[in-house]
Amino acid sequence: MIGGMNVLWILAHPEPRSLNGFLAAEGRRALRAEGHHVEVSDLYAMGWNPVVDASAYAHDPAERFRVADAAKHAHHAGTVAADIRAEQEKIDRADTLVVQFPLWWFGMPAILKGWFDRVWHQGYAYGLRGPDGEWSGYGDGFLAGKRALAVVTMGGPAGFYGERGIHGAVDELLFPLQHGMLFYGGAKVLPPVLLWGTDRFTPEDAAGAAKELRERLRAVPATEPIPYRPRNGGDYDDRFVLRPEVAPGLTGSRAHRSA
Amino acid sequence: MIGGMNVLWILAHPEPRSLNGFLAAEGRRALRAEGHHVEVSDLYAMGWNPVVDASAYAHDPAERFRVADAAKHAHHAGTVAADIRAEQEKIDRADTLVVQFPLWWFGMPAILKGWFDRVWHQGYAYGLRGPDGEWSGYGDGFLAGKRALAVVTMGGPAGFYGERGIHGAVDELLFPLQHGMLFYGGAKVLPPVLLWGTDRFTPEDAAGAAKELRERLRAVPATEPIPYRPRNGGDYDDRFVLRPEVAPGLTGSRAHRSA
Repeated sequence: MIGGMNVLWILAHPEPRSLNGFLAAEGRRALRAEGHHVEVSDLYAMGWNPVVDASAYAHDPAERFRVADAAKHAHHAGTVAADIRAEQEKIDRADTLVVQFPLWWFGMPAILKGWFDRVWHQGYAYGLRGPDGEWSGYGDGFLAGKRALAVVTMGGPAGFYGERGIHGAVDELLFPLQHGMLFYGGAKVLPPVLLWGTDRFTPEDAAGAAKELRERLRAVPATEPIPYRPRNGGDYDDRFVLRPEVAPGLTGSRAHRSA
Repeated sequence: MIGGMNVLWILAHPEPRSLNGFLAAEGRRALRAEGHHVEVSDLYAMGWNPVVDASAYAHDPAERFRVADAAKHAHHAGTVAADIRAEQEKIDRADTLVVQFPLWWFGMPAILKGWFDRVWHQGYAYGLRGPDGEWSGYGDGFLAGKRALAVVTMGGPAGFYGERGIHGAVDELLFPLQHGMLFYGGAKVLPPVLLWGTDRFTPEDAAGAAKELRERLRAVPATEPIPYRPRNGGDYDDRFVLRPEVAPGLTGSRAHRSA
């Protein structure tokens, strides 16, 4: 590859000796072996604080803490906490984000949810206007020009997370991350790497997963992103609802992609 | 009402002077005025630690930390951390759970997600068998006989979270909590109290929301729960996939309720 990617790899797992720890190490190694640059936010290893509070945004505790406003103010005043700013600088340097986690109770581990809650604050990640004065969001924003890939392990078998499986369809479960956060920010969101049945993985299964991961990483620059509909592309009305002629009859997350 | 409820009210908001703080206080007050008993887990006020780690389950750091196994082992050995056990005792004492939070990035604040991640561990909340030896989960489990009510504030207007709104349908966004956690545990899950557009709430809007909340709380014992399908009720095959004749053509979260 010409140039090479600048990857930020965000990992949320408490155990380096786990499948997730193994895959993260393998992925990093494979990327570096091909000349890419990789920064890592290993949230457990960093002791990341996932809890939004006033102190991170230099907010005067005598005043009511309005989360979004306080963060925006701190952002413009340059008083956001150093741990948050460090993550934002990593994001800004990257052209590719990898978000890796085990699915716990059908979502991200708290330490990762709180990475988004704290780092993706108003003024940095939302409440932004583009050069034309239009609000950005969903297809354009602070992640414009970047690619994003989720890598998700699930203990149960694939069927539990299928279109009619009891846990709910995995596309729906990941919609908040993939559409609501990554695509919202303007990233091109690639189809996720999904690893099912990991509770019963053998060493051979883990090796197979590592191989799949390496192939997906190698293919990042050429992979077609999920065709989520950009907000300003004509599919939504001015109240951010899909126009009747777009995906007629479809509701929920499925309606927000064009294929 | 005869008897009175034993309510556990779980709140996740950093600011007591917020709309969420106001509603929590109003709800508590109203319940107590009617003779109900209310315990509160105000996660911010408690300084709740939302991060799953080995120490909470008395796990030997020399050994690989397998989260679910370590928790189950600690549960049976009586070595689960005191903060987790205290929450479990509150849950066990309650007949009604209220889960109140602002929707942040289309899900729970990290401090609340980590309440579930840590407290709802294997051995206590899943991996259980009923008296007949059958695995429990989805319609029966450690929350059997309890009712659950989510109270959720959303900054944006209702249309954004509608069936074809850009943020995704709120039913889908809450499915992991309502179906995957509360109904999974065996609770009767009531339709949530949803408050939209709260970024622009006036004092009159807040008073109106408090009134709605009081009415919903008063109606808890008589409210029809969401008709999620019990796993052992015949709608699922033995791989936990909906049988073809059940909700034909429906996929995702919508398929898992009978009305």
